[in-house]
Amino acid sequence: MLGLSQKPIIKLSHNQLIDDTVCIEEPLEIILEFYSHQQLKRETIAITMRTPGNEKELAIGFLYSEGIIDKYEEIDKIEFSFDCAQDESRNQQCVIRLIKNKFIDITKHKRHFYTSSSCGVCGKTSIDLSLEQCPFILIKSIPKLKKEILLQLPERLKINQAIFSKTGGSHGVGLFDTNGNMICVMEDVGRHNAMDKLIGYALINNLNPLQDQVIVVSGRASFELIQKSLCIACSIFIAVGAPSSLAVEIASEFNMTLVGFTKNNNANIYSCPERIITI
Amino acid sequence: MLGLSQKPIIKLSHNQLIDDTVCIEEPLEIILEFYSHQQLKRETIAITMRTPGNEKELAIGFLYSEGIIDKYEEIDKIEFSFDCAQDESRNQQCVIRLIKNKFIDITKHKRHFYTSSSCGVCGKTSIDLSLEQCPFILIKSIPKLKKEILLQLPERLKINQAIFSKTGGSHGVGLFDTNGNMICVMEDVGRHNAMDKLIGYALINNLNPLQDQVIVVSGRASFELIQKSLCIACSIFIAVGAPSSLAVEIASEFNMTLVGFTKNNNANIYSCPERIITI
Repeated sequence: MLGLSQKPIIKLSHNQLIDDTVCIEEPLEIILEFYSHQQLKRETIAITMRTPGNEKELAIGFLYSEGIIDKYEEIDKIEFSFDCAQDESRNQQCVIRLIKNKFIDITKHKRHFYTSSSCGVCGKTSIDLSLEQCPFILIKSIPKLKKEILLQLPERLKINQAIFSKTGGSHGVGLFDTNGNMICVMEDVGRHNAMDKLIGYALINNLNPLQDQVIVVSGRASFELIQKSLCIACSIFIAVGAPSSLAVEIASEFNMTLVGFTKNNNANIYSCPERIITI
Repeated sequence: MLGLSQKPIIKLSHNQLIDDTVCIEEPLEIILEFYSHQQLKRETIAITMRTPGNEKELAIGFLYSEGIIDKYEEIDKIEFSFDCAQDESRNQQCVIRLIKNKFIDITKHKRHFYTSSSCGVCGKTSIDLSLEQCPFILIKSIPKLKKEILLQLPERLKINQAIFSKTGGSHGVGLFDTNGNMICVMEDVGRHNAMDKLIGYALINNLNPLQDQVIVVSGRASFELIQKSLCIACSIFIAVGAPSSLAVEIASEFNMTLVGFTKNNNANIYSCPERIITI
């Protein structure tokens, strides 16, 4: 299966060598081709450590949540290639060519080198800059989600995480409707990649803006996951783990319902509780 | 307490408004001052989303694991400041001035903008480049760690995670000796920040190289955490969660003992098992 690798391990409880399955972490280089003054230019805009699978969605979701494209139709073509001179597994490239009349200011997207707890804000000089890309204002109190359905969503996400079930080592991001029906589940060793894959899926399938759907994440709610979800106008964001302070502040500011610690038949609502039907 | 923020929440199980404590996520801008052709230059080299606390260790650990400094003594002075023009909580700066005769090639450290599952490799054009910074070769089979002590380390880390105990929302990284004695525990909303804080602590306290100590992380083992641990010559790396495929490959290549899924009185040894005494 894509995204999995076999490794021999010693299990301490048995004290013997067995084969274990781990989640693959490999670089994907995203190269952008775009026209500037009639010339075709080419720039590497990201190298992301990701789990193989859904590269098209990942690359498109990344370009969108970075504000480089506004819609799927601005992409002319996508190519994937391996650098055969090096170890194949470590060099996969994705080349995305934009349509001729799409103008981008590449210097705007060039950033300092960077670290981040979440990495989705990598290289941005300010939080406000990364929020500039949120093209939607969420409408207060739409949609509505019943408490009973909310509490089931993490389990519905988990049973659809094929890589996690074999490795225990991937993050999952799921898109559900308010009746709890699964629309899409994406997995990756990096949670922001899983989110970008989901965003790419939403763009390719013309689901954007998502106002009536719910995003569920298997881990914590960081600023960058909230920011990416706002890019596709998600109104309800449900995390199995804890939110950070900034995640709570941004969710409140943008009228997003943020739910954390959704486990053991409980959940904490951090913002816009009016979308959750608790009775 | 530093790193904590109070937020009002609705707890679904009680259906009432209560106060909750969340882990703070805030930017820290790391600015480097260095001499080039007798002139003092100034560059922002990182803006990291981090949890307040141990900023000095974080900045120094970051510079070291990025290969910008080789030792603590190359730092002339460190200053912290707030940008009062903006919301104070969102703008904290750390200015690090290098000593006059420390040469750095700043262009080498300028990178593409980037994402990563782990973010510690942000902006590197290749994995090999980020491994170039590992100044040590680990000596095979030294040190030794008893199975009984190994299995206790995650719990010893957890009871020393003050922010996690109040929020459930921070990553912990701990340094222990092979008798299981705690040397240092660092926490952060970003696991690579927690690791940089630990590395900074090790440099400031002259513990580097770490050959006889053990690093324990509360979450998963990604490539970037392994790479950072190799920078300070850690021989034994213990994760509570899963390792990625690349983490296993790099650990094997550099003779590091990598242990994952250390919980419920069990653990998986992925590389160099000769350092673990299982009898």
